[in-house]
Amino acid sequence: MTAFSRFTPLAASLPASVPFVGPEAIERQRGLAVRARIGANESGFGPAPSVLAAIADKAGEIWKYNDPENHALKAALAAHLGLKPENFAIGEGIDDLLGLIVRLVIEPGMPVATSLGAYPTFNFHVNGFGGRLVTAPYRDDREDLDALLDLVRREDAPLVYFANPDNPMGSWWDAGSIVAFARALPSTTLLILDEAYSETAPAGSIPATDALIDLPNVIRMRTFSKAYGLAGARVGYGVGTPGTVGAFDKIRNHFGMPRLSTEAALAALADQAYLSEVVGRIKAARDRIATVATANGLTPLPSATNFVAIDTGRDGVFARAIVDGLMEHGVFIRMPGVAPLNRCIRVSAGLPEDIDLFEEALPKVLAHLR
Amino acid sequence: MTAFSRFTPLAASLPASVPFVGPEAIERQRGLAVRARIGANESGFGPAPSVLAAIADKAGEIWKYNDPENHALKAALAAHLGLKPENFAIGEGIDDLLGLIVRLVIEPGMPVATSLGAYPTFNFHVNGFGGRLVTAPYRDDREDLDALLDLVRREDAPLVYFANPDNPMGSWWDAGSIVAFARALPSTTLLILDEAYSETAPAGSIPATDALIDLPNVIRMRTFSKAYGLAGARVGYGVGTPGTVGAFDKIRNHFGMPRLSTEAALAALADQAYLSEVVGRIKAARDRIATVATANGLTPLPSATNFVAIDTGRDGVFARAIVDGLMEHGVFIRMPGVAPLNRCIRVSAGLPEDIDLFEEALPKVLAHLR
Repeated sequence: MTAFSRFTPLAASLPASVPFVGPEAIERQRGLAVRARIGANESGFGPAPSVLAAIADKAGEIWKYNDPENHALKAALAAHLGLKPENFAIGEGIDDLLGLIVRLVIEPGMPVATSLGAYPTFNFHVNGFGGRLVTAPYRDDREDLDALLDLVRREDAPLVYFANPDNPMGSWWDAGSIVAFARALPSTTLLILDEAYSETAPAGSIPATDALIDLPNVIRMRTFSKAYGLAGARVGYGVGTPGTVGAFDKIRNHFGMPRLSTEAALAALADQAYLSEVVGRIKAARDRIATVATANGLTPLPSATNFVAIDTGRDGVFARAIVDGLMEHGVFIRMPGVAPLNRCIRVSAGLPEDIDLFEEALPKVLAHLR
Repeated sequence: MTAFSRFTPLAASLPASVPFVGPEAIERQRGLAVRARIGANESGFGPAPSVLAAIADKAGEIWKYNDPENHALKAALAAHLGLKPENFAIGEGIDDLLGLIVRLVIEPGMPVATSLGAYPTFNFHVNGFGGRLVTAPYRDDREDLDALLDLVRREDAPLVYFANPDNPMGSWWDAGSIVAFARALPSTTLLILDEAYSETAPAGSIPATDALIDLPNVIRMRTFSKAYGLAGARVGYGVGTPGTVGAFDKIRNHFGMPRLSTEAALAALADQAYLSEVVGRIKAARDRIATVATANGLTPLPSATNFVAIDTGRDGVFARAIVDGLMEHGVFIRMPGVAPLNRCIRVSAGLPEDIDLFEEALPKVLAHLR
C-alpha cells in the first residue's frame, strides 16, 4: 500500500474522480489528435487582441505575487456592473468558488439541491465535502424552478444550485422567473445562480445587475472563461452582498490568483467592443451547428450559450457512439452525463474551420452507426 | 445583516483574516509607493528570458483550459528529478496544496503540529478546517526537530509541518537529520516537508530526491515562486508516493491550473543555467544585505533562502517600527509574527538597486528610532 494510512474517513471514501476528462487525456489515451476543439465550451475565437497585448505588456511582472485583495479587478467589475467592489469575490474560475461555497455551507450529510444532470463539478465539490445531493429532474430540457423550490423546502436544503443559461442543455429562463424563484427561497437557503453563459443569453433572460443584490442568500457567478475567451486564465467571480461574498476571505487561497490572468481579465473587461463582436460570431456558429444537425436528421435545441445541445433522437449509448466516432475524425465534443439529457450531444461554438470539420465528420459517423 | 445566515458553525467562527497583507494593500492604506519590493521573498531577478519567450509564444492559447492531468509538467518534473510522473501532484502554489492536505487529513479538533512562528498560511488552513494547532518553539532560531517529534508522539498528531530551509528565519538542517526525523515519525503522522527554498540551500541540506520517496507519510513541497521567479504564476508541486499524492485528485480543482503558468513552469524547469545564475545573484544579494545590517549595528542570521532574517537586538515593537519606517522610504520588507522570532526583520534578496534603497533608508530609520 503506497497511500498514507490516516486520511479522514470522508477523504478515504471518495473516488479519485475527475468531473471531465480533458481533450489532452483523450488524445493520449486513444492516440488521436484533436483537430476541432469544440467540446469544452471554450471560445475558439480567443481573447481580444487588446488582452494579448496586456499579457505581453505585463509578462515581466510575473515574479510578483498578485494583489491578494484583487482590488483592481473588483473595482473594474464594480464600475462595469454599477455595484461596489465589496459586492465581489474573485476566484480561480467559478469551479474554485463553487468548492469554497460548499465548504462554507455544507457539513457531512446535509442536503444540497440541484437538477439531475446539471453541472458535474458542483456535484464533485458537494461529494467532496460529504454533502447529500438531492435532485429535481429537468422539465422540457430546462431546469425546473418549481420543482427545485419544492425540493428545497421539503429537504430544508441550505444550498441550491441553478444555472441560467443552463449547461449542458443551453436552455434558459426569463429574468422575472429567476428573480421570483430567488425571492421565494427561504432565507436559510443559499442560491448559487451560475451565470457563466450570461454574455450569450438573449435579452430579458438575465436579471438586472441590481435585481438580487439585496439578498444575502444569493451569489451570482460569472466568468471570463466563456465569451471572453480566457478559460486557461482561470478567472471567475461571485456577486452578492458584502457579508456573503466576504465569507470567502475566511477560507480562500488569498495568494491564489495568477498575476497575468488578472491583467488579462482587466483588459478583457475594458474591451466590450470585442466581446460584442465575439458574441455575434458565437451566434453565427450556433446557427451553423444547428443547420448541420438538421441536415443530418438530428434536432438542435435552442441555445442561450456558446454551445448547442443536439437531440440525437436515441439514447445515451447512441450519443456516446457519436461523440466517440467524431473523435476518430479529430472532432472533440462532449455530451450530458445523465438520462434523458444524454440522448443529446453538445457542440461548442467555434471557428468556421472547426464547424467545417464537424460538418464533414458527422454524416460519416452517423452512416457508420446506422 | 448582509451575510447569509446559515454558514456552518465552523465557517461562522472564522475571522476574515489574511495571513499576509500584500504590498499593494499597504500602498493603498498608507498612501505610499513601493520602490524596493523586497518583502515577500519573490525574486526581483525575474524569470528566465526563455520563460518570457514561452509565455509570449503560448499566450494565444489562453482560450483553452489547461490539461487537468498536468501531464506535461508531471513528466518534466519526473525527468528532472529522476522520479515517476505519478510521484507528483501539481497545485496553484504550495499554499493551495497545503489547504488540500489539511482537508484530507484533519477533522475538527484534531491536533496539527508545527513550530511556533512558522508559516502562517499553513496555520490559516489548519484553522479553516477546525484543526487544533500545537506548537514547538524554535531553538536557536531553527525549527526544533526533536521537540517536534516529541510533540507529534505526545499529541498523536496526524499531521506535522516542517520547512527546510525555514521561513521566516532562513535557517536549515542537514539532510541526514531531516531523513532521520521523517523515518522516526509514526506512520500515522503525515509530514509536510516544505522545501520552497530548496534551490538556494547549501549542499548537504536537502535530502536526495529519492531519500524519502518510499514513505507514504511524507509529502515534499516545491515551488516555482522563489528562485525560479514565478510567484505570480502560482505553480507548486508535491512529491510523494503515488497513493499519497494521488489523494489530491479526490478533491482538487481539476481545471484550476492556469495554462500560461504551466507553460512558464515548463520553460523555467528547462532552463537550469538561468536558475544557477540567479542562485548566484541571490547569494550575492544575501551577502550585501548582511553587510548593510552589520554596518548598522544589527546582526544578520545565516540564510539558506532568498532572504535574510536580521536580528535587531530588541523586541517585536522595535522590529515593527523598522518595518513601518522603511516603508516610509518605499522599502517594503516583512518580519516574523511571533516572539522571540519577531525581534528580527526579514529582507528578501533583490536587485542591486533594491538593496541600495534599503542601505540608504535603514540608517535613517534607525537614527529616527534611537
